[in-house]
Amino acid sequence: MTASNTERNVYLSGTLVPESQAKISIFDSAVMLGDCVTESTRTFAHKPFKLGEHIARLYRSLKVARIDPGLSPEEMLAVTLDLLQQNLQTIDHGDDFWIVHNISRGLAVAGPDPTVAQSAATVMIHNSMMDLTGWAEFFAQGCHAVTPMSRAIPSQSLDARIKNRSRMNYTLAEVEVKLVDEKAQSVLLDIHGNVSENKGGNVFIVSDGVLKTPSTSNCLAGVSRATVLELALELNITCEETSLQPYDLYTADELFFTSTPYCIMPATKFNGLPVGNGEVGAITRKILAAWSELVGVDIQGQAEAQL
Amino acid sequence: MTASNTERNVYLSGTLVPESQAKISIFDSAVMLGDCVTESTRTFAHKPFKLGEHIARLYRSLKVARIDPGLSPEEMLAVTLDLLQQNLQTIDHGDDFWIVHNISRGLAVAGPDPTVAQSAATVMIHNSMMDLTGWAEFFAQGCHAVTPMSRAIPSQSLDARIKNRSRMNYTLAEVEVKLVDEKAQSVLLDIHGNVSENKGGNVFIVSDGVLKTPSTSNCLAGVSRATVLELALELNITCEETSLQPYDLYTADELFFTSTPYCIMPATKFNGLPVGNGEVGAITRKILAAWSELVGVDIQGQAEAQL
Amino acid sequence: MTASNTERNVYLSGTLVPESQAKISIFDSAVMLGDCVTESTRTFAHKPFKLGEHIARLYRSLKVARIDPGLSPEEMLAVTLDLLQQNLQTIDHGDDFWIVHNISRGLAVAGPDPTVAQSAATVMIHNSMMDLTGWAEFFAQGCHAVTPMSRAIPSQSLDARIKNRSRMNYTLAEVEVKLVDEKAQSVLLDIHGNVSENKGGNVFIVSDGVLKTPSTSNCLAGVSRATVLELALELNITCEETSLQPYDLYTADELFFTSTPYCIMPATKFNGLPVGNGEVGAITRKILAAWSELVGVDIQGQAEAQL
Amino acid sequence: MTASNTERNVYLSGTLVPESQAKISIFDSAVMLGDCVTESTRTFAHKPFKLGEHIARLYRSLKVARIDPGLSPEEMLAVTLDLLQQNLQTIDHGDDFWIVHNISRGLAVAGPDPTVAQSAATVMIHNSMMDLTGWAEFFAQGCHAVTPMSRAIPSQSLDARIKNRSRMNYTLAEVEVKLVDEKAQSVLLDIHGNVSENKGGNVFIVSDGVLKTPSTSNCLAGVSRATVLELALELNITCEETSLQPYDLYTADELFFTSTPYCIMPATKFNGLPVGNGEVGAITRKILAAWSELVGVDIQGQAEAQL
Amino acid sequence: MTASNTERNVYLSGTLVPESQAKISIFDSAVMLGDCVTESTRTFAHKPFKLGEHIARLYRSLKVARIDPGLSPEEMLAVTLDLLQQNLQTIDHGDDFWIVHNISRGLAVAGPDPTVAQSAATVMIHNSMMDLTGWAEFFAQGCHAVTPMSRAIPSQSLDARIKNRSRMNYTLAEVEVKLVDEKAQSVLLDIHGNVSENKGGNVFIVSDGVLKTPSTSNCLAGVSRATVLELALELNITCEETSLQPYDLYTADELFFTSTPYCIMPATKFNGLPVGNGEVGAITRKILAAWSELVGVDIQGQAEAQL
Amino acid sequence: MTASNTERNVYLSGTLVPESQAKISIFDSAVMLGDCVTESTRTFAHKPFKLGEHIARLYRSLKVARIDPGLSPEEMLAVTLDLLQQNLQTIDHGDDFWIVHNISRGLAVAGPDPTVAQSAATVMIHNSMMDLTGWAEFFAQGCHAVTPMSRAIPSQSLDARIKNRSRMNYTLAEVEVKLVDEKAQSVLLDIHGNVSENKGGNVFIVSDGVLKTPSTSNCLAGVSRATVLELALELNITCEETSLQPYDLYTADELFFTSTPYCIMPATKFNGLPVGNGEVGAITRKILAAWSELVGVDIQGQAEAQL
Repeated sequence: MTASNTERNVYLSGTLVPESQAKISIFDSAVMLGDCVTESTRTFAHKPFKLGEHIARLYRSLKVARIDPGLSPEEMLAVTLDLLQQNLQTIDHGDDFWIVHNISRGLAVAGPDPTVAQSAATVMIHNSMMDLTGWAEFFAQGCHAVTPMSRAIPSQSLDARIKNRSRMNYTLAEVEVKLVDEKAQSVLLDIHGNVSENKGGNVFIVSDGVLKTPSTSNCLAGVSRATVLELALELNITCEETSLQPYDLYTADELFFTSTPYCIMPATKFNGLPVGNGEVGAITRKILAAWSELVGVDIQGQAEAQL
Repeated sequence: MTASNTERNVYLSGTLVPESQAKISIFDSAVMLGDCVTESTRTFAHKPFKLGEHIARLYRSLKVARIDPGLSPEEMLAVTLDLLQQNLQTIDHGDDFWIVHNISRGLAVAGPDPTVAQSAATVMIHNSMMDLTGWAEFFAQGCHAVTPMSRAIPSQSLDARIKNRSRMNYTLAEVEVKLVDEKAQSVLLDIHGNVSENKGGNVFIVSDGVLKTPSTSNCLAGVSRATVLELALELNITCEETSLQPYDLYTADELFFTSTPYCIMPATKFNGLPVGNGEVGAITRKILAAWSELVGVDIQGQAEAQL
Repeated sequence: MTASNTERNVYLSGTLVPESQAKISIFDSAVMLGDCVTESTRTFAHKPFKLGEHIARLYRSLKVARIDPGLSPEEMLAVTLDLLQQNLQTIDHGDDFWIVHNISRGLAVAGPDPTVAQSAATVMIHNSMMDLTGWAEFFAQGCHAVTPMSRAIPSQSLDARIKNRSRMNYTLAEVEVKLVDEKAQSVLLDIHGNVSENKGGNVFIVSDGVLKTPSTSNCLAGVSRATVLELALELNITCEETSLQPYDLYTADELFFTSTPYCIMPATKFNGLPVGNGEVGAITRKILAAWSELVGVDIQGQAEAQL
Repeated sequence: MTASNTERNVYLSGTLVPESQAKISIFDSAVMLGDCVTESTRTFAHKPFKLGEHIARLYRSLKVARIDPGLSPEEMLAVTLDLLQQNLQTIDHGDDFWIVHNISRGLAVAGPDPTVAQSAATVMIHNSMMDLTGWAEFFAQGCHAVTPMSRAIPSQSLDARIKNRSRMNYTLAEVEVKLVDEKAQSVLLDIHGNVSENKGGNVFIVSDGVLKTPSTSNCLAGVSRATVLELALELNITCEETSLQPYDLYTADELFFTSTPYCIMPATKFNGLPVGNGEVGAITRKILAAWSELVGVDIQGQAEAQL
Repeated sequence: MTASNTERNVYLSGTLVPESQAKISIFDSAVMLGDCVTESTRTFAHKPFKLGEHIARLYRSLKVARIDPGLSPEEMLAVTLDLLQQNLQTIDHGDDFWIVHNISRGLAVAGPDPTVAQSAATVMIHNSMMDLTGWAEFFAQGCHAVTPMSRAIPSQSLDARIKNRSRMNYTLAEVEVKLVDEKAQSVLLDIHGNVSENKGGNVFIVSDGVLKTPSTSNCLAGVSRATVLELALELNITCEETSLQPYDLYTADELFFTSTPYCIMPATKFNGLPVGNGEVGAITRKILAAWSELVGVDIQGQAEAQL
Repeated sequence: MTASNTERNVYLSGTLVPESQAKISIFDSAVMLGDCVTESTRTFAHKPFKLGEHIARLYRSLKVARIDPGLSPEEMLAVTLDLLQQNLQTIDHGDDFWIVHNISRGLAVAGPDPTVAQSAATVMIHNSMMDLTGWAEFFAQGCHAVTPMSRAIPSQSLDARIKNRSRMNYTLAEVEVKLVDEKAQSVLLDIHGNVSENKGGNVFIVSDGVLKTPSTSNCLAGVSRATVLELALELNITCEETSLQPYDLYTADELFFTSTPYCIMPATKFNGLPVGNGEVGAITRKILAAWSELVGVDIQGQAEAQL
């Protein structure tokens, strides 16, 4: 991973601007109201992974949030690919990109109706280099998963499946788990005490050879989550979408998170106790290997190369 | 209300910039994570109202959100007053300002730890002209208060008293009530079905001469709310902080909201039914009059003059 | 649909009386306590549909409500068929009947024990002409499904599967959705925010070709619901009984209700947003067609003929 | 108490009919939907007690239920008093009346909109002789209060303060407590496990000389409840509206119910354990005595005379 | 069943002591804090049944409770079998043993940290003669299952799958059901009103030939429960792990409990109503017969022989 | 604090035995079921503090748990004082005693009815020397209060006011907070996210000069809690029993726990953030001083002398 000397561009509501100039008004509804939906896609070997599915989910979020992005899904795909094409020259062959869409309602109006904006939606698309240094050591050692006291926002308040940027509760939950271990990764519970999700990912366990994950009634329907379920199917691993409690994680043989940047992140400790034998599990490694094969990138190797 | 020809300035992390240039990076944690705390204060006759209390609450929000603004409360007060002093020349004698503080954690870091930022906090302070046109008609006629299906975020997920900008659930709740009446104002319930708050304000009723409002265990501890309770005390109106359900609002004699911009906003309809006799109530008017007297501004008159 | 000149009869606790004379004491427990269980069956081409299943469910409701109807299930079936036979002559060939059973505990006793009555149960069976004019336009255009703020009664208070006449909460929920659209049909959520049921029916969605409906842990185990699941099985449509939230309905490809009178009622709008492409969906139409075939009646045609 | 040989009349939507003829259509929304609001007032020495307050509450219920009774409150009062006047001649000097108002939405319409009726509201007013034989023994011995497994309906489903006739859950709760003791009186808990109400009354305890009762956020705002609080105030007994759990009832010194017919009903056993010393408590007797004095009727004596 | 004249031994933290001498300090954390995990295994024809699975679950409980027993699972198995071998001579051929493990954290420390003990864990293993007289009559007649008002402890407070000795809430729930019937067996609901578990067992119903039991998200993952599911699989009985409410039990064809001592205990009454036809059901008898065959002991016969 | 060379006695169901011999059967219901109620009283200058109130509460717990201790409250008081008198000679003048009552139902019966025991209740009374070394440093520095993910048991499962020994959930909660700081003291939330209690004490805050503590609807009605409220009243400090959330603790000026051994334990850190200025607060010190004066013992001094 070496820094490129060419600055990347950002797509900002129809124009391309260099990253350092990519700014929005402090009156934007993203800033004033957290009123912004989002998607994060990554590339593998410079090719976007399941970009169509991410864009489809983005449009579901836009629909429920009633934000008109001013672009059709096809146009969104096209501008995304154009931007990526341009920016790819700024990174090394071995590195990859994070393709992030943030779409806010536009300039906010102070007044009785926050559901209309003074301007068209603000469409922000950027490509960050996929910097995995923060997670890289976890592939081999596993991370420490910790449960915060704060609970995930219930769907009757704001459905986690609207992938959005009103995420302060995730950040505060992370603060809580960092009190236990500065590298801890959170496992949020829902208000009934069931395992919900990670700040940006889903949670899986392996128990007696069965792969289990919460159903999406209390967490994001992650694209990486779906990929793991597909890979497991191909590998003949039995899968269950079910309700999990901390007891299941304490007594699991394996535990891992899924999210766009790291794909699969093993956890070998849960609230201070070893998960299984305290090492990254066989099924976790098997699914990660299948994923690496699927995309033609050694996911773990790429991350570790950044260290 | 006439537009001034001089552009106002914004305080942006230590420098003053014209409003039209007040922009922040799309990588700011305000945009990327909704990780931003806020306060809104208003002036009356160009003097800030309870600015000290607003700044004290801002620092409580900052503390719980663990954001270091880089300024002491005294410094924050000073820069706020300086900015206001400069901007006051841009508005007419009869108009007033909204003083808004937004403080994010700074440039977000993509990675496992959202609780640290790449930069110092982003401190945004701006003065919007207090445009009350959206609410002005409600002073005389009362607004239509409507209950959305979505519920306020419970404190175990994110306490409403951390005044923050992760507010998508408020916007979606507003969308729901706008389906009933395009000028409707929301009354959010908490997840147990108790009246919680408005998207940016508190809810009060008058029943048999007693002023009642939810306790702050499920809503923002509004500064305007506190002002109403103080004024009621002086006016010898009995007050109760209690638990309210929609039944209480349906059968109340009077209903109003409180918030910084409009101070007191009467509601004369609740979910399609008249509140009391369907007119703005006597106690509501009495408290609003006392407030006008307190601040030396005819609050209703100022708003109506903008129509 | 032409009105018949012969008045229909009603079965009233053992005797047949003309509809206009079918009256019960104001002291009946149906009136005094809402203490009445019920079933609604319809005919297709003058033949009752799944009457045995409706009567079996009626006896489950009677059992849990501890009401002794004074008739065995076989006797209930016989008197129901006798009544129907008599009444059929009052309607046109193209019309059908709604067979409604209402059974209350009998004359209520004012005093400490509402669980005994002063008389035998009041057994009311009537045949209303199946007037579908209120729903007829929805077959082609779809209705507008709207979520009220009020929630379904939880099973720990009163299980929805006891099909009963203590239904004020449904009526008030309907009032709420009529504020949005005077023809809106309600989608009640349970107290956890999961989709529960309609005032008299069940809710289904189609997403990516999969038919989904809430499990009966929070809604009525509808006979029409069961019919749809059976037809879908025959049509090789994958079905899931699962937990649904409003997000699922917003993002579904198709949405419909099931209930005895209309069988399947498409919804093409949900809380103001189009469902799928805003038109009645292919799978919805396919299942309705299969139902029409099953019963030998063009269900949609019959309804539209009444307009 | 001797039966009168003159039949009483019932007010039925504008006409007076003898009780035995007081019947409503089986298609009335009271029967078909439990869509009926109600009030029960009693007389003391043939004078109605707080009839104005009962009628005021009736109109609050009507408002929230959106039923138009077709009479103003003043007219309702007048017809109620007229009816009472006529019927009083049918009872002995020592007996009293129960004045019951039941008002349904009118003839129900089968179709998509239960919020409108085919006819004007059905107004039923009747005067039952206040038969206290079922409760009479409890004045001296106290009753057995028992907690059922079923829970009160939460306000977010149907607010208990809308005094209505959709009461099957109360009847089923009574069935449950009758399993413990055939004369048991229920104490319903709300869904959080807090004491809510009795099937038709409120619950009070005395602990260390303080009179406590649940606030009306989870129970009916009973007129008898209010009377007890007023009498206690006059008797210098400290009162608290608070949250109670079964522990409070188990460890209370005194326990009683309040309701229109019996006013105050002591409970000397709670779930099989004696309350206090197992006898009717001093404060309970004191308040009941004050009530008897207030209304000029020996409440306990009148009831016991009926045995 | 005849009492043996030789006293059995107990394994007490490494030493064998006669039962009558098997005592622990009143300062043990089992006594002071209920801080003790447990397993109960039984023998059939003097052979322990699924002892390996019970010990595996014991170590899961120990792990989550963070108690170090000072023995490996293999050592625990060995000392358990040794003890059993010795004690078997004290009972008749036709009788069997209950093998109970209780492991507390050790001598409790009064002070700020209950998570450490002053001593090594207290390991108690005893063999009680399997006295089934209390249950024996239920095999033929079925027991009376009753729902208490108290609810099972939610997993977010203490997960039922940690098999532990902090069981006062079960005892109090039993008290409540004994008010209904002195031989009643409890069916606890969880805090949402779903069927959870019995004081020491799991709950099953048979409805239309399908065997249903709650998933383990709100109850103990019983070893007997697992045995029933295995036997049902072999017998080609369809099984569902699902969410059940009291309605399901009221309307089931068969109802039974499972627990280590009695294996399968039919219930023929639920809250006073007959289950199915009021007799022990065919599927219940079939599974019990299969179990008897599996273990070579006539389970019902053995129990009845003790009467 | 010097160890005495005379061993203390324990009262064990009617007999006095030396502490080292104070043992109970492993078949006792305290061990087998956690079926044991308890009280902890302390002495100040060798005099028991509020022993009468503790014994009264013990009998409330016994009543609700339906355990018959076999002694009247007066007898319990007498044997307690006798025991204390004997044991007092074993400690130094400057030290004090912890008087602990543990009363179990007696020898447990394995079988369907845990509510009866094979023997009379097991009454255990012991006097531990009040060893405050674990807490002593907190008087001057304050402790670190931390919120675990596990929640207090709701009253509908087991009311915290039944002071009992089924306390595994407290121990597991302590484990969780020890992950943050090995000396952390827990602040449990209830299942709604409101502050409940500490593992053995109550929680108080001071905000703007007002002393606040949760009402006893979700926590133990502590005797120390009551003492603080009495002392505050005498000191003219305004008190509120209210609902508190973590936000209140984060933003409080002072925070402390109350419990029998330490009386008042200041907390100067909450979840890693300083409380107020990070030092023990003035009002906390004032109340502690008043308590010391009340009992004639320098509470803090006594504890610190043990270090």
